[in-house]
Amino acid sequence: MNVTVRGRTRHYRTVTFDLRRNAVLLIEQRLLPHRFEIVAMNDFRETAAAIHDMIVRGAGAIGATAAYGLAQGARAFRGRDLKKFSQQVATVYKTLKAARPTAVDPVNAMNQVRRAMQAGKTVEEQQTLALTQADAFANEDVLHCQEIGRQGVKLIRAGTRVLTHCNAGWLAFVDIGSATAPMYAAQAAGKKFHVFCDETRPRSQGATLTAWELAQQGISHQVIADNAAGHLMQRGEVDLVIVGSDRTLGRTGEVANKIGTYTKAVLARRHGIPFYVAIPLSTIDWNLKSGFEIPIEERHEHEVLGAWGEISKLKAGRRKPKSGRRAYVQVANPDSGARNPGFDVTPAELITGIITPAGIFKPRELWRRRRELGFVDQ
Amino acid sequence: MNVTVRGRTRHYRTVTFDLRRNAVLLIEQRLLPHRFEIVAMNDFRETAAAIHDMIVRGAGAIGATAAYGLAQGARAFRGRDLKKFSQQVATVYKTLKAARPTAVDPVNAMNQVRRAMQAGKTVEEQQTLALTQADAFANEDVLHCQEIGRQGVKLIRAGTRVLTHCNAGWLAFVDIGSATAPMYAAQAAGKKFHVFCDETRPRSQGATLTAWELAQQGISHQVIADNAAGHLMQRGEVDLVIVGSDRTLGRTGEVANKIGTYTKAVLARRHGIPFYVAIPLSTIDWNLKSGFEIPIEERHEHEVLGAWGEISKLKAGRRKPKSGRRAYVQVANPDSGARNPGFDVTPAELITGIITPAGIFKPRELWRRRRELGFVDQ
Repeated sequence: MNVTVRGRTRHYRTVTFDLRRNAVLLIEQRLLPHRFEIVAMNDFRETAAAIHDMIVRGAGAIGATAAYGLAQGARAFRGRDLKKFSQQVATVYKTLKAARPTAVDPVNAMNQVRRAMQAGKTVEEQQTLALTQADAFANEDVLHCQEIGRQGVKLIRAGTRVLTHCNAGWLAFVDIGSATAPMYAAQAAGKKFHVFCDETRPRSQGATLTAWELAQQGISHQVIADNAAGHLMQRGEVDLVIVGSDRTLGRTGEVANKIGTYTKAVLARRHGIPFYVAIPLSTIDWNLKSGFEIPIEERHEHEVLGAWGEISKLKAGRRKPKSGRRAYVQVANPDSGARNPGFDVTPAELITGIITPAGIFKPRELWRRRRELGFVDQ
Repeated sequence: MNVTVRGRTRHYRTVTFDLRRNAVLLIEQRLLPHRFEIVAMNDFRETAAAIHDMIVRGAGAIGATAAYGLAQGARAFRGRDLKKFSQQVATVYKTLKAARPTAVDPVNAMNQVRRAMQAGKTVEEQQTLALTQADAFANEDVLHCQEIGRQGVKLIRAGTRVLTHCNAGWLAFVDIGSATAPMYAAQAAGKKFHVFCDETRPRSQGATLTAWELAQQGISHQVIADNAAGHLMQRGEVDLVIVGSDRTLGRTGEVANKIGTYTKAVLARRHGIPFYVAIPLSTIDWNLKSGFEIPIEERHEHEVLGAWGEISKLKAGRRKPKSGRRAYVQVANPDSGARNPGFDVTPAELITGIITPAGIFKPRELWRRRRELGFVDQ
């Protein structure tokens, strides 16, 4: 999507590849929203570290990063010995896989790259195929998000007030995003609408990433405390909820997503507001039989007990001058601990529809249509 | 309640009066939870400034502060001229009232003091009566909270996991608090239980004040992101919700309280978890006919866009060393705005019971019992 830096607007993807330098280029997401910077990962170990250290995050984005990282590692090999080359590729694969061990997207993406490489007879051919397939993976991610936008655009009308939670935007993919895709499509169609971004404590990805994205794209939006959504719904100020998903159960239609998603679904149901989940097909889990089987990561308590931001002076309560200094502040009582579940599970009955590149489905429809949606018999 | 400073435990009230120095003594709440300090307000203008600047906050606490401030201003008068004395008292009254113009408690408290003073024939008698009445107001606030505890203690059993929102603790009153009163009573009765403190963005009073209170009292507790309550309820980890209220409508049983309270009530209902509101009778509004008549204060957006805390270094993700430096950090995208409703309204149908010093009532029972609960025909 577009980013404006010092008055100049340019199109960026979250992940790209620099052919000449054999480098993976990433948006340094840990600096957002306070600073926009493209950083180059100059070998596969740097690329793995970028995934591990959260320079890049989001299912589609880390998938593409791993695919490019594998191609990068393969292309760095000098020589014609196919056996040594294969050993090098195996090392690269392992290193990138270990960077985010619980994520499934990097593994899927790298498996695609490895499969494509097998058609090559020489080291050079395999190197070329690796990059071609990584490019294909990234482009496919973009196409899927575009298709989500095309499917979901009809949900947004002129004047619609959309609520979204966390960041399922273009920063989480290669471009466009999932939950944001219908918004960007609606904007392209000339519709004027408004988005409420849940702050999304404890890591505040709504206030930092989603708000930044929408601001860059010039979409009308406001940040709200997670506590405020219920009140706004009660007063009739929200027409539609769209969120993303980390894992959607194909068998039950349950949706695992950032902590707080379930609460928004419960509130939306009470107020008769449609609640949609936007996903690429790759996030459907066809195996698990119940949401209670999804392991809910208990994250570190310092996320709840404090916040990251730029140290600022409040000037008579108005706009704050930039200090350029980022810091973590301990907000909570220092002697207190915290519980910090990172995700929650929303049951199918609370979900109006699941927006996929293949259409909008009722949650329980996924299983019936499993073969057309990518389910593979084992 | 008890506060431990450098290993020494002492009993403190939120507001007290120093007779010899004619000073109002307050806990400096803006420094909590990072520093505990008692500050002396040496004349009524300082006391008014303390209310205005939020050194003291909470209905009962600012009521008592205003009552003591009025006595303080009256006692500072030198001479025997009753007319000049009355003028001075009128000035003090106006100054204290203007410190928090929308609050009703300071006015009610000061009216009680003024009424009591009328029995005095001389300046000196009236000065004495002013202080006596201010003391009576403060003591009554404590008694009411104790009574809330006595009524509510039966709701907490051994092992009960209580969720509370914001701070309706002793810091918001002269002592004991409203929502916390049943917890302190249960502790005194030797029961072991656990409290989840909602962080309560945007001002985080749950993470700062309630967590600090409970830690001082040695009550088992954890801070959670506001987003996590739904998940914990879904997994069966919450047995009871108790919150306070800024205004409870006597005619309808609706409860206005800190933003996010309504959301917790909706979630509690979905999971069949009892939802109680603890209030002193003074917060019942007998006039309004609907919650939609309650003006919802839209507060400044910087509360949502950032956070206050102590600048800290995360040491390998573990306990942070104290820096002693408090700062505001801008968390959200700097180009984005925010909506910031400060309160929401919970309908009677979602409230299991209202815990008052006079008993626990169904919300719609208040009106039927209005005469015994303090309703006055106009």
